[in-house]
Amino acid sequence: MAGAAMLWAGAVFAEGPLDTPADIAWTIVAAALVFFMQAGFALLEGGMVRAKNAVNVIMKNYSDMCFGVIAYWAIGYGLMFGATENGWFGLDHYLPDLQSGVEATHFIFQLMFAATAATIVSGAVAERMRFGPYVVASMIITGVIYAVYGAWAWGSFYDGSGWLVDMGFIDFAGSTVVHSIGGWCALAGVIVLGPRLGRFAPDGTPRDIPGHNLPYIALGGFILWLGWFGFNGGSTLAASADVGIICVNTHLAGAAGFIGALLMQRLLRKPILMTAAVNGAIGGLVAITSPCATTVPMFALVIGLVAGAITVLGVMLLERLRLDDVVGAISVHGFCGAWGTLSAALFYRGDLFDPGRIQIQLIGIGAAFLWSFPTALLTFWIVKKVFGLRAPTLHEQRGLDFTEHYEIGYPEFQRDLTHAGKD
Amino acid sequence: MAGAAMLWAGAVFAEGPLDTPADIAWTIVAAALVFFMQAGFALLEGGMVRAKNAVNVIMKNYSDMCFGVIAYWAIGYGLMFGATENGWFGLDHYLPDLQSGVEATHFIFQLMFAATAATIVSGAVAERMRFGPYVVASMIITGVIYAVYGAWAWGSFYDGSGWLVDMGFIDFAGSTVVHSIGGWCALAGVIVLGPRLGRFAPDGTPRDIPGHNLPYIALGGFILWLGWFGFNGGSTLAASADVGIICVNTHLAGAAGFIGALLMQRLLRKPILMTAAVNGAIGGLVAITSPCATTVPMFALVIGLVAGAITVLGVMLLERLRLDDVVGAISVHGFCGAWGTLSAALFYRGDLFDPGRIQIQLIGIGAAFLWSFPTALLTFWIVKKVFGLRAPTLHEQRGLDFTEHYEIGYPEFQRDLTHAGKD
Amino acid sequence: MAGAAMLWAGAVFAEGPLDTPADIAWTIVAAALVFFMQAGFALLEGGMVRAKNAVNVIMKNYSDMCFGVIAYWAIGYGLMFGATENGWFGLDHYLPDLQSGVEATHFIFQLMFAATAATIVSGAVAERMRFGPYVVASMIITGVIYAVYGAWAWGSFYDGSGWLVDMGFIDFAGSTVVHSIGGWCALAGVIVLGPRLGRFAPDGTPRDIPGHNLPYIALGGFILWLGWFGFNGGSTLAASADVGIICVNTHLAGAAGFIGALLMQRLLRKPILMTAAVNGAIGGLVAITSPCATTVPMFALVIGLVAGAITVLGVMLLERLRLDDVVGAISVHGFCGAWGTLSAALFYRGDLFDPGRIQIQLIGIGAAFLWSFPTALLTFWIVKKVFGLRAPTLHEQRGLDFTEHYEIGYPEFQRDLTHAGKD
Repeated sequence: MAGAAMLWAGAVFAEGPLDTPADIAWTIVAAALVFFMQAGFALLEGGMVRAKNAVNVIMKNYSDMCFGVIAYWAIGYGLMFGATENGWFGLDHYLPDLQSGVEATHFIFQLMFAATAATIVSGAVAERMRFGPYVVASMIITGVIYAVYGAWAWGSFYDGSGWLVDMGFIDFAGSTVVHSIGGWCALAGVIVLGPRLGRFAPDGTPRDIPGHNLPYIALGGFILWLGWFGFNGGSTLAASADVGIICVNTHLAGAAGFIGALLMQRLLRKPILMTAAVNGAIGGLVAITSPCATTVPMFALVIGLVAGAITVLGVMLLERLRLDDVVGAISVHGFCGAWGTLSAALFYRGDLFDPGRIQIQLIGIGAAFLWSFPTALLTFWIVKKVFGLRAPTLHEQRGLDFTEHYEIGYPEFQRDLTHAGKD
Repeated sequence: MAGAAMLWAGAVFAEGPLDTPADIAWTIVAAALVFFMQAGFALLEGGMVRAKNAVNVIMKNYSDMCFGVIAYWAIGYGLMFGATENGWFGLDHYLPDLQSGVEATHFIFQLMFAATAATIVSGAVAERMRFGPYVVASMIITGVIYAVYGAWAWGSFYDGSGWLVDMGFIDFAGSTVVHSIGGWCALAGVIVLGPRLGRFAPDGTPRDIPGHNLPYIALGGFILWLGWFGFNGGSTLAASADVGIICVNTHLAGAAGFIGALLMQRLLRKPILMTAAVNGAIGGLVAITSPCATTVPMFALVIGLVAGAITVLGVMLLERLRLDDVVGAISVHGFCGAWGTLSAALFYRGDLFDPGRIQIQLIGIGAAFLWSFPTALLTFWIVKKVFGLRAPTLHEQRGLDFTEHYEIGYPEFQRDLTHAGKD
Repeated sequence: MAGAAMLWAGAVFAEGPLDTPADIAWTIVAAALVFFMQAGFALLEGGMVRAKNAVNVIMKNYSDMCFGVIAYWAIGYGLMFGATENGWFGLDHYLPDLQSGVEATHFIFQLMFAATAATIVSGAVAERMRFGPYVVASMIITGVIYAVYGAWAWGSFYDGSGWLVDMGFIDFAGSTVVHSIGGWCALAGVIVLGPRLGRFAPDGTPRDIPGHNLPYIALGGFILWLGWFGFNGGSTLAASADVGIICVNTHLAGAAGFIGALLMQRLLRKPILMTAAVNGAIGGLVAITSPCATTVPMFALVIGLVAGAITVLGVMLLERLRLDDVVGAISVHGFCGAWGTLSAALFYRGDLFDPGRIQIQLIGIGAAFLWSFPTALLTFWIVKKVFGLRAPTLHEQRGLDFTEHYEIGYPEFQRDLTHAGKD
């Protein structure tokens, strides 16, 4: 990652990030792939909600990206990558005009990452959070909560370095910086918001609310997986030979995550759900995001397998705590992000289970939670007080598509809703 | 754009277009991304029509690309990029055999652009134009109308230059060349064809006909946005440092277009429609296509915001004129293309609002309309006389999927249509 | 293709495969595009089955990729590209740890290819094959059947060469290695399995079973086409100038395949089905995969046109033989793969219809069938005996989504199935 030392010794080409035309082109392609992950999230989340809320959750995905662009350009990028003295946040490059090609390329790549972190939240809080307040909270997450932690682990691109960088914390492409931060913000949102109507019986028994379109979930998963080659591979910021092993590890961990979720479901004698299997693959990809440049294929498989199992167990744990995470984002991004960040120390190539490294990784994982969870909790709480966060019961029953957007996703197939406005 | 001078001063790498392996690889990737925009258009248009016409409009997208390939290879490329003496059209490179890698790479990139221009039309005239005649008109647009204007603004790749190039007209990646031309052809088609049955009441009151699948629209928007990084970024034909700022400007304008449409809808006290918001984003992307290499991030946001507002107002204007543009293509591509091309003069970096530049841009914008609108009108009129353009009323009522293709999009969900053929 | 001599004389840049940063970056991008073809297959196959089997076939796509990763990493890559003495299979690079960037990049690209071959089968045998046994058969195809033939035609990347390589067999990117092999395995599966219930009347009259979602088919087709630029263009393993003409030929053949299927349907006075037209395009792409680096645009069009016609005729032939290939995979991948491989000799640039070359190509085509069809037949037969291959009749009637995964694709739209489990 920019600002962090290159961690993989095998590089034969790279002289430095963004030094050559090939570096620029590769980083732009990678940025485009990371951008496309927004479509993956939109489909995954859109497919996992009921049809009556599909437009609303997709609009949230579009909006956190579009408004997040403003927040990150105005504040976030400077906070995260501006020159830093104390290692806690950056002091310049607010509203950057990006005069050089290197700077512009770095900015666009980071901008796509920032949008990813925010969009993790939308799925967890789907089907019950109002649109406007969501956008406000999302801009704060992108522009401040994400950016400040990023400054610790990846800053600065210009001068000085973050305190986690100085300690030697490894989070190559952001298992923690992007995914766990997004996951913990989602956890805060879910707690402040409460579960959907009918998700838990009065005695606490969970009731399944199936997603309305499973092929969307599958396609969303494929698109996210595709984006991950840019997410992890592009974090070299260079068309270096490292990209090869990074992409191999990424792919193996994704595949192993899928298998891990399958095996864990079978072990628990549960049905083999596609929803869970796709989440398992994404969990594997989240986990490998931190160690992808510093581990080897064999361990990438182990990291992914464990992550896949975690996604299944994490969903069960949250259900027991009566937390209603519609898409399993806390489990996939929060828990697997933490696991992956730890695994970067456990399975560091040529030097496994080093206690010093494990300690540093645990500090980074802990710092992420201690920073993002309380600040997100506060953010959602303030937004709730100021604007109101939860849709009224009648709106939730009718579906937010109709009540918030006066549109429904499938006017010809949701016949009972088509005339809802004419009552 | 090839043939036009590089307009952005900050380039540190580029020696010339298509000079290095990285240039070739980047341009091919960009061409692939532009190709993928066809899928974006197909989904956007497919989602905005009623289910009974989804197959038909998607088949038109496929067909204008596939038949357009033949038209552009046989005639269009030579007309547009062949050596020119007078600056009005090219004289060689018809049916090119593309012996050199540079030439082949240039051709494939331009071929994808040509397909984009034609496909803009299919959405506007959806749900009522017959398949065969559409394909004929589409080939003329790709092979002649688009190509000739392209020769003025971008020609030649080989020898001589177009008269708009000589004037200093700025249309880096084609706000006018591709999008306005497509938009004005769509306008001509809509006029010749007339509105869909029931779209306007006998007294002229418009009646909404909602699209059948909004998630497709959202996904189509994301895919188009992704493609735009190739569309604008690839128009350097070089893996140059310029690509960074071009992609930043592109992305900011897209995001601002989304926000602009949202704000304009709120200002007008209308519901915040996803359909309109996605169109706003695309309008922003269309607008920035011309100035993306010559403006700065701050103005990219302004250009996008205005474009987003234009998409909303444009749709209202066309509705008042009783023109039935099913997907808003005239507004998004025609109007925003013109706005973007003008904005390239208004917000030229380091030299805003230069009257000379404004005048040149207005000439280019006007020339596009005066060339493409009458010729497209004539094309559709002739096709109408020779083949018949509009589907019979009974076919329009049943849906063109069944009457033209003997297939329906969702045989299990469109139950009332499933047995339509057995009556 | 790696291991085979570069066949196109026009190269101006390439010094060798994977030699430069641009080579690495391009090959990784190409690998990502080939990966994305999995999504294309999943949508194409998912759209062509009935809604009640959509989850099942998509899960098979995910699974053959994910389990295939393990099989190919453990066994397949070594068999295919390891050093070979006799030219029949490789002897090292099993469970490779991929220490160098070049090796890792080569591996990831080849891994994506291997996954493609297996996934061709899933569509043909859809709607009636059980999930678990399918995965077992798929791993054998990926890890052994595909890999061994690959060793003949493309091996070795390290030392020695395959016997077909030595003969001068041309299969640049795998019309035979990937597509025909996949097609013949599909043929074996279809034979062992038998047709779906009701597909043929007792007197043998075929009955159409329409796919449930045609827009998915269209999107799947676009995604596959996009992936093909990586599939064919990336097979240079170098950001060489060759990539330009390769991608031009690829695109022209795809377009011509679409047109060829259209014309053949019109010639036979059949309706112009989108399903068949998209298959025609894919058939064109399959066919050009072998000759894309050694032919010229004019002949690429001819090759594609013929391939499009073959897809239509092939489907009719299989129907007459009472073979039930749900998606037309045998026709598209098997027959067009063979045609394309032959066409590489027929339309070799500057040296058409050379009898020596034709003979060699026919040997390669024949060897592929003689190796893969019997071994796949045996594989499916053994899997059938050991695990059971075909879902019980009641399961097939209800749909495999519910019986194998306890999920259905569209719980709100498949109302008759929603409560199926509660009977």
